[in-house]
Amino acid sequence: MQEILSRIREEKPLIHQITNYVTVNDAANITLYWGGLPVMADAKEEVAEMVQAAQALVLNIGTLNQRQVSSMIKAGKQANRLGIPIILDPVGVGATEFRTKTVRRLLDELEIAVIKGNQGEISILAEGEGEVRGVESVGDYEELVANVQKLAVAEKAVVIVSGAEDIVTDGKESYQVNNGHRLLGQVVGTGCMLGSTLGVFAGVSDDYLTASLTAVTAYGIAGEIAGRKASEPATYKTTFMDSISELTDEEIVKHQQITKL
Amino acid sequence: MQEILSRIREEKPLIHQITNYVTVNDAANITLYWGGLPVMADAKEEVAEMVQAAQALVLNIGTLNQRQVSSMIKAGKQANRLGIPIILDPVGVGATEFRTKTVRRLLDELEIAVIKGNQGEISILAEGEGEVRGVESVGDYEELVANVQKLAVAEKAVVIVSGAEDIVTDGKESYQVNNGHRLLGQVVGTGCMLGSTLGVFAGVSDDYLTASLTAVTAYGIAGEIAGRKASEPATYKTTFMDSISELTDEEIVKHQQITKL
Amino acid sequence: MQEILSRIREEKPLIHQITNYVTVNDAANITLYWGGLPVMADAKEEVAEMVQAAQALVLNIGTLNQRQVSSMIKAGKQANRLGIPIILDPVGVGATEFRTKTVRRLLDELEIAVIKGNQGEISILAEGEGEVRGVESVGDYEELVANVQKLAVAEKAVVIVSGAEDIVTDGKESYQVNNGHRLLGQVVGTGCMLGSTLGVFAGVSDDYLTASLTAVTAYGIAGEIAGRKASEPATYKTTFMDSISELTDEEIVKHQQITKL
Repeated sequence: MQEILSRIREEKPLIHQITNYVTVNDAANITLYWGGLPVMADAKEEVAEMVQAAQALVLNIGTLNQRQVSSMIKAGKQANRLGIPIILDPVGVGATEFRTKTVRRLLDELEIAVIKGNQGEISILAEGEGEVRGVESVGDYEELVANVQKLAVAEKAVVIVSGAEDIVTDGKESYQVNNGHRLLGQVVGTGCMLGSTLGVFAGVSDDYLTASLTAVTAYGIAGEIAGRKASEPATYKTTFMDSISELTDEEIVKHQQITKL
Repeated sequence: MQEILSRIREEKPLIHQITNYVTVNDAANITLYWGGLPVMADAKEEVAEMVQAAQALVLNIGTLNQRQVSSMIKAGKQANRLGIPIILDPVGVGATEFRTKTVRRLLDELEIAVIKGNQGEISILAEGEGEVRGVESVGDYEELVANVQKLAVAEKAVVIVSGAEDIVTDGKESYQVNNGHRLLGQVVGTGCMLGSTLGVFAGVSDDYLTASLTAVTAYGIAGEIAGRKASEPATYKTTFMDSISELTDEEIVKHQQITKL
Repeated sequence: MQEILSRIREEKPLIHQITNYVTVNDAANITLYWGGLPVMADAKEEVAEMVQAAQALVLNIGTLNQRQVSSMIKAGKQANRLGIPIILDPVGVGATEFRTKTVRRLLDELEIAVIKGNQGEISILAEGEGEVRGVESVGDYEELVANVQKLAVAEKAVVIVSGAEDIVTDGKESYQVNNGHRLLGQVVGTGCMLGSTLGVFAGVSDDYLTASLTAVTAYGIAGEIAGRKASEPATYKTTFMDSISELTDEEIVKHQQITKL
């Protein structure tokens, strides 16, 4: 997907995010740095009205509570009515019954366009209540990909497994992205910021698979650029955020490391 | 207003802020960097007691909810009883009915000393439910200023329109401030931090017009100083925060660009 | 306590924190930078389940509300049942009746392993409802230490008074720590981050006195290292966070300034 960054910077998509209070500032900033406009309203009194003006809705359950779940459902239904894509970040699903039930409810009651999680989170969704297993062999990896593809088909969604190597699939086409940097895993909020990033990219394209693949790649490339300038986590975070704001479509094309699975 | 920074650093005004969860950390830090002391308590069980110790109360509706509105009213009434100035930042007023109604209610039930918003927000308050218009000609600008002055008179408040050029007026005297920097618009939280800044300055002076004018000018000058050192948004934000902590009264006098309207 | 940093980085203790929304991002990041894993869930629907997986529970009342107090009690009782240490940071106790009553309730209903506050906060707890007095003479200091020791005995807890010189005591053994840096007092969140730090260190040791003493010392040494590289508050904060991630057990032993009282 060429020129998507130019399109973001021109269209300035408004990204409505109902998210956790730990990384909400990072989520808002990265949205702005990509060229989007963040709005983080989360009260049930206004979310349905607010989402009407948005180009994407990001739901992140990092510090969920009952009040927030109601707001997510309300905003999500309105988004579905209007054809606004929803990105779901099921943070910590499986860690508590409340998280698992909430994610099931969001998947049941809403049409989600993009689901993004780490391997543990996506495995919980892909394998039901089963034990999450590590990926220690080629066979394990192939099984993981097959499960994720099944989840994508079942939920009619693009599914992303983030990690040292990311998987991006809509169930039919599947890709592995090898961009990224070790330090992205050593700063709080980089998972949440990837969720926001997926919102920004889905906000300017109807092709959610390509938009997601480009988003994950661009995010990883910005991480690599920052890794050439900083080696300590707090400084790395600032440098990474700066890299986001300066990334170009040309750099994405030049540095992308995508393998079709 | 000469020597106001020295006064802030000497008196260390306690600034009670009921604000949004996106930029609350920035709001607290800038308060401390100016020389004030931040307290961000927002539970209805304690806000009326907490505000008694404060020199100013900042109300910011960036991520408002019903619980928070109750706390704002409660803290605000106590502040009014005690003569503690209230600064109102009507973030996103006009975007939803809940925001618009809440701001009307705050303006009806409380005496607000200082109202600060961007052009869109202040226009909503100044022009009632009417359409917000851009400022594209000298005539438009004169109409904007006239409307803002009317709002200031109606609300018996100092009103500030922040932007590339800021307007500061109490309805009788009006000023344009030309200090500031482009990058202040490319970082999340700079609007909210200006609200906190107005609280700090109003916390050490009864002359809210002069205090606000100096606050807006000082904020812009710190932005300019940072702009000479950093050109990327995340680094700029850190540099800007550092500039706040080092700004002097002499620099304000030397660099201020204020025009009487 | 030698090798505690190595142990943290190896065991990666999960630190469950129910905390304020001002500094929650800093608290999560410092936990990760030490080598722990932060989880900041605060809904009553899930805290009791979440804390089961944790090695320590940190309770910080910086922006408490009724909902959060219920979650603290619920998580705390579960932690006590499972023998997971609780660290209490009674931010602003004494400032409002709600804070004071909440802290009394937490101390009554829960067994707290470590209590950390500044001199004003700990004095409120140590002296009951009495006036907090400054420490202006050797006699005052001796009285402060005696009161803090009594509090430690009464609560069967390690008590820490943070300040230019920190006091760490379990009521029987008492220490003064002289590590630290002036700029730690000029950035929002350094008190809260010390609370998180105490959680991380208590999460890998049953000897809470030694773990707390080492935590306070390590924190101060990281502050000193940062102070040799940065002199402005926002830059200092980033540098301090980086120093945390790079500190070694050897540096703690080499630079610690601990006096037995």
